Amino acid sequence: MTTYRELSKAAQEELLASLYEEYKGFVAKGLKLNMTRGKPAPEQLALSHGMFDVLSSKTDPAIIGELLHEGQVDDLRNYGGLVGLPEARALMALIMDVAPEETIVCGNSSLNIMYDLVSQAMTQGIANQTPWAKLDAPVKFLCPSPGYDRHFALTAHFGIKMIPIPMTAEGPDMYLVERHVNTDLSVKGIWCVPKYANPCGVTYSEDIVKQFASLTPAAKDFRIYWDNAYAVHDFTQPGDALPSIKAACEKTGNKNLWYMFSSTSKITFAGAGISAVASSPENIEEIRSRLSLQTIGPDKLNQLRHVLFLKDLNGVRAHMQKHAEILAPKFKKVLEILDAELSGLGLGEWTRPKGGYFISYLGMSRTAKRIVQLAKDAGLILTEAGATYPYGNDPYDSNIRIAPSYPSLEEIEVASRLFVLCVKIISLEVLLKRK
Amino acid sequence: MTTYRELSKAAQEELLASLYEEYKGFVAKGLKLNMTRGKPAPEQLALSHGMFDVLSSKTDPAIIGELLHEGQVDDLRNYGGLVGLPEARALMALIMDVAPEETIVCGNSSLNIMYDLVSQAMTQGIANQTPWAKLDAPVKFLCPSPGYDRHFALTAHFGIKMIPIPMTAEGPDMYLVERHVNTDLSVKGIWCVPKYANPCGVTYSEDIVKQFASLTPAAKDFRIYWDNAYAVHDFTQPGDALPSIKAACEKTGNKNLWYMFSSTSKITFAGAGISAVASSPENIEEIRSRLSLQTIGPDKLNQLRHVLFLKDLNGVRAHMQKHAEILAPKFKKVLEILDAELSGLGLGEWTRPKGGYFISYLGMSRTAKRIVQLAKDAGLILTEAGATYPYGNDPYDSNIRIAPSYPSLEEIEVASRLFVLCVKIISLEVLLKRK
Repeated sequence: MTTYRELSKAAQEELLASLYEEYKGFVAKGLKLNMTRGKPAPEQLALSHGMFDVLSSKTDPAIIGELLHEGQVDDLRNYGGLVGLPEARALMALIMDVAPEETIVCGNSSLNIMYDLVSQAMTQGIANQTPWAKLDAPVKFLCPSPGYDRHFALTAHFGIKMIPIPMTAEGPDMYLVERHVNTDLSVKGIWCVPKYANPCGVTYSEDIVKQFASLTPAAKDFRIYWDNAYAVHDFTQPGDALPSIKAACEKTGNKNLWYMFSSTSKITFAGAGISAVASSPENIEEIRSRLSLQTIGPDKLNQLRHVLFLKDLNGVRAHMQKHAEILAPKFKKVLEILDAELSGLGLGEWTRPKGGYFISYLGMSRTAKRIVQLAKDAGLILTEAGATYPYGNDPYDSNIRIAPSYPSLEEIEVASRLFVLCVKIISLEVLLKRK
Repeated sequence: MTTYRELSKAAQEELLASLYEEYKGFVAKGLKLNMTRGKPAPEQLALSHGMFDVLSSKTDPAIIGELLHEGQVDDLRNYGGLVGLPEARALMALIMDVAPEETIVCGNSSLNIMYDLVSQAMTQGIANQTPWAKLDAPVKFLCPSPGYDRHFALTAHFGIKMIPIPMTAEGPDMYLVERHVNTDLSVKGIWCVPKYANPCGVTYSEDIVKQFASLTPAAKDFRIYWDNAYAVHDFTQPGDALPSIKAACEKTGNKNLWYMFSSTSKITFAGAGISAVASSPENIEEIRSRLSLQTIGPDKLNQLRHVLFLKDLNGVRAHMQKHAEILAPKFKKVLEILDAELSGLGLGEWTRPKGGYFISYLGMSRTAKRIVQLAKDAGLILTEAGATYPYGNDPYDSNIRIAPSYPSLEEIEVASRLFVLCVKIISLEVLLKRK
């Protein structure tokens, strides 16, 4: 197959003219397609409608009103239960591969937990270190990139300086991570999505996790912010296995180095799930003591709904299998069209994740913004180019995040065909300019 | 009637001996009574069991999945809806006597909203003023006292200096409030529970609210933190009417001066209600823009449950009437026993609120701590003496908060009799020491 680059200028021009014609056809359709965010589709949300029925006014009052757990009696409808329903802690601990006593279960948003941890580090400090807001030099966070835009946005919000760290096929560039963390006192954190990383789909390897656990941070309040958002979100079996950061850190004696986050946002309801933070008992006690000033307790009834509906790890896995049956064909469809239309053209590469919510497209330099704009002009909204980099700055302007979960299979087919067309057009325009 | 003070030493000693005997009888019962917190009783929580049924897997998907509101379609199960379900904003606006567009509906804890506002003032600043964490001099908050212990605890947590302001029968001492607010640049806030104040039950008068609205703060980022926790929580009809702080501030041109908070914690489920913040459109936009970094949206399904269950202000009032029927006899019982046992003895005074969750007992100086301890030794746990003052410091050691909502009527009778006995014993001991 001939790559676009190898075509003569005349052939490129002829091809571009025919692609413009094709593009006009898409514009004429008046499409309204959205592949911006990792949102579950309506049919995925419907998988959890059974959760509406686990509590009713006919439910045994002993379940709703009082839940006996290890000698504790709690009225789940009332105030209290600061660290969460014991059964919910056990469930989330299973999902996160940690112990229940290392887990605090909160409200519907794990992002909110992360925000609060950074916020409290600013005002209260971590482990008796100076609160970051009181430091003269600005605090820095390492940001493996491309990464999760909301991590970066909240970091920027606190005036924390973000240092991009390139992602490799098995995780962040650990040489750079080590150099920054082990030598710079102002480096206080690193954002990680260690399984099915947003957006590139990578799951960190055993070596990478070991290297994380072996860091010797200059700052005593440096922590790894391990956002395990896709812990059980495989759509291919067997999925990727993420090595335990907890076990690795215990082995190296760095037991307080990690904070882990997870939620059921992409298990049950994206807007009405439960979230959790896990860490060493020492860190958890620090988090708990602050939480006691912030709230009287989480929504334990929603935690109970989750426990009654999902039951245990087998229940979670069976439920996630249903998600997989909806998600897998959507990812397959995008990849089929990318493979059929772009393979061998020399224009870019794309990822083939076994789980998570994203496909990452890496194209030619200085094409991503224009591809996203061209798609938008024909009615397909993609994640803004650059959004997956700190400060929205993709140095090569080459990365585009594709989120196939929300649209229907039919919409995905149209959207993917429009996407590859936009890739071809913009890439050709760039090639022609170089001539 | 002869007051205890007027009794001879011998008569006081004889009386005290007989009261000790009576006390021994209570100790022998091995009681376990708790009147510490303003927690709804199990039968109050049971009033909202109907809310378990408003959503089921058989509910019309158009209600759960898509709620049409003023042209917006939202999938309530999914991410989004940062400022809350429109219908929930309308409902909470009615409860708070403000407009829906001035209202943001959040998770289960209004305390959490207050914490976040203070926290964000520390790190981000209010209205483009310097973030409080960056100021050289510590920020100060005015604390009408006795007041809500959790307000004070969170204020202390942020290192904010608390200035106690005495409470009068119609609200805080406004002479002092004005003096501090209008002259001191470091005074950034005041905590108010303006209706059925925790713990003294006072509802701020028209004059007080007007004086609040007429403040001319030295600090541009001074705000009134108006915790309208008991907005619809009357148990006597007609209840107190709280003048509108919003209307008053609009009249004086101080439109950005107020933040209002409320929740359904004491309407539906204490642990699984919905909370709200209201303020001027300008302040709300500032809060919204920060919220966008903190979360992708609140639990809109729980907001929907509330809307379907409570419906409108009439629904809320009818529901609160049921609470009143449970609460009123409990308050009546405490007051009956206080009246019968302590009236005319010259030992103290107590409040007679028309709503809210507390009776406030104001006794002789240097008695509160010992009364609370004596009650505890016989199995009755009361709110820690001093807890209702900044830094836990009741300057006269004379105030005790009585929370009659949670125990049963039978328990309240026993607890109240034990309480008045402890008041008599400690007061007599103090009087005897003075002889």
